[in-house]
Amino acid sequence: MNLILLFHDDFLAETRVRLTGRRLEHVLTVHRAALGDELTVGVEGGRVGRGRVVRIDGDALEMEVALDRDPPAPLPLVLVLALPRPKVMNRVIAGVASLGVKRVFLINAWRVEKSYWSSPRLRGLREQTILGLEQAKDTVLPSIELRRLFRPFVEDELPTIARGTRALVAHPGAAEECPRDLREPATLAIGPEGGFIAEEIASLERIGFTPVSLGPRVLRVETAVAAIIGRLF
Amino acid sequence: MNLILLFHDDFLAETRVRLTGRRLEHVLTVHRAALGDELTVGVEGGRVGRGRVVRIDGDALEMEVALDRDPPAPLPLVLVLALPRPKVMNRVIAGVASLGVKRVFLINAWRVEKSYWSSPRLRGLREQTILGLEQAKDTVLPSIELRRLFRPFVEDELPTIARGTRALVAHPGAAEECPRDLREPATLAIGPEGGFIAEEIASLERIGFTPVSLGPRVLRVETAVAAIIGRLF
Repeated sequence: MNLILLFHDDFLAETRVRLTGRRLEHVLTVHRAALGDELTVGVEGGRVGRGRVVRIDGDALEMEVALDRDPPAPLPLVLVLALPRPKVMNRVIAGVASLGVKRVFLINAWRVEKSYWSSPRLRGLREQTILGLEQAKDTVLPSIELRRLFRPFVEDELPTIARGTRALVAHPGAAEECPRDLREPATLAIGPEGGFIAEEIASLERIGFTPVSLGPRVLRVETAVAAIIGRLF
Repeated sequence: MNLILLFHDDFLAETRVRLTGRRLEHVLTVHRAALGDELTVGVEGGRVGRGRVVRIDGDALEMEVALDRDPPAPLPLVLVLALPRPKVMNRVIAGVASLGVKRVFLINAWRVEKSYWSSPRLRGLREQTILGLEQAKDTVLPSIELRRLFRPFVEDELPTIARGTRALVAHPGAAEECPRDLREPATLAIGPEGGFIAEEIASLERIGFTPVSLGPRVLRVETAVAAIIGRLF
């Protein structure tokens, strides 16, 4: 936790906050905060600054906060991700949030197992985005939207979402290399383990997506997302 | 497992292999391999090709293999990584192997907790590199060396290791931006959670390392490694 993310409900007064629960425990056991210590804080959707610990009691800790700078710039990227396996979901989402992606669609695809859609992990996505922001010292929560039907999403919604952006789909074996150092917004689609099937790639190409390759290596989704984002921006 | 990695001991004859244990189980339960099926295989340190299943019995499966191509090119990168927390060790190492890094030093640093060096995970690193190679369809195992003393390593060994390469240390807050699309070999040092301390950065600078920044976001080590590699190569 490199930044303590504060929410509206934490504020007792304009510059006074009260931490409880997970954040309190982390601050006491990992940061070992004592009276007078200063910690990096940020307000959800807002600015970043310092919080000085002014009170510690059994179930809460209070800080006086001074917010004096903006959070890191968001990535100009919409990520369209085939729903990952539940086992990797948490770290994919926390990783994506830490990288600064602000809009994510988790979509169905032929090779997404149906059971993934009933994973309880899908109810904990917001918590994972908070962990990612705390890691990266960011305050702006990404939106994460679920789309259980591939074709209606790609045909009816995605053209509008991707309009005016560089639209790419990561596809091992694509003839074109993944571009570098984009100076424009992008929409990036990443398939499931085993990749999108040919029909799905064709659907994406029809609405203007270019299949691009990262080379012959097949990477796990969390590694691929970070490597592609590192390359694009 | 996008490639089944074969070892010398698996060969019954020049083109005939016998799988047992973890790989057998994976091939039977995940690939659901049947007689006559073809699977992607590769020989440790050698070529890649196809294996045709010619026999399945209770405790083993046999394949006839034909190896006809080289594995993906290695990354021209030596990675010097502060020993990660045991909890993330496995996926850091598997990720690094999947990205094609062939030489890794896990080193001590001020902010590496001493207890990390007695983690049982350190005895399972080879297994994790195999999982990374199977993911990325590679066959060449990286070497992973442990160095428990920072200064002797940096002062006595690292200058030779880094000679003739672009030597970089990832350092949040560095004035210089991390370069892109290197056309030369590199040596990349990445610190522990919380970063290298100033004295460590100074030691690395003295032997020719340049501190470079990836921007204001602090990333988890596995995310940072992939993002930097995606950017460099």
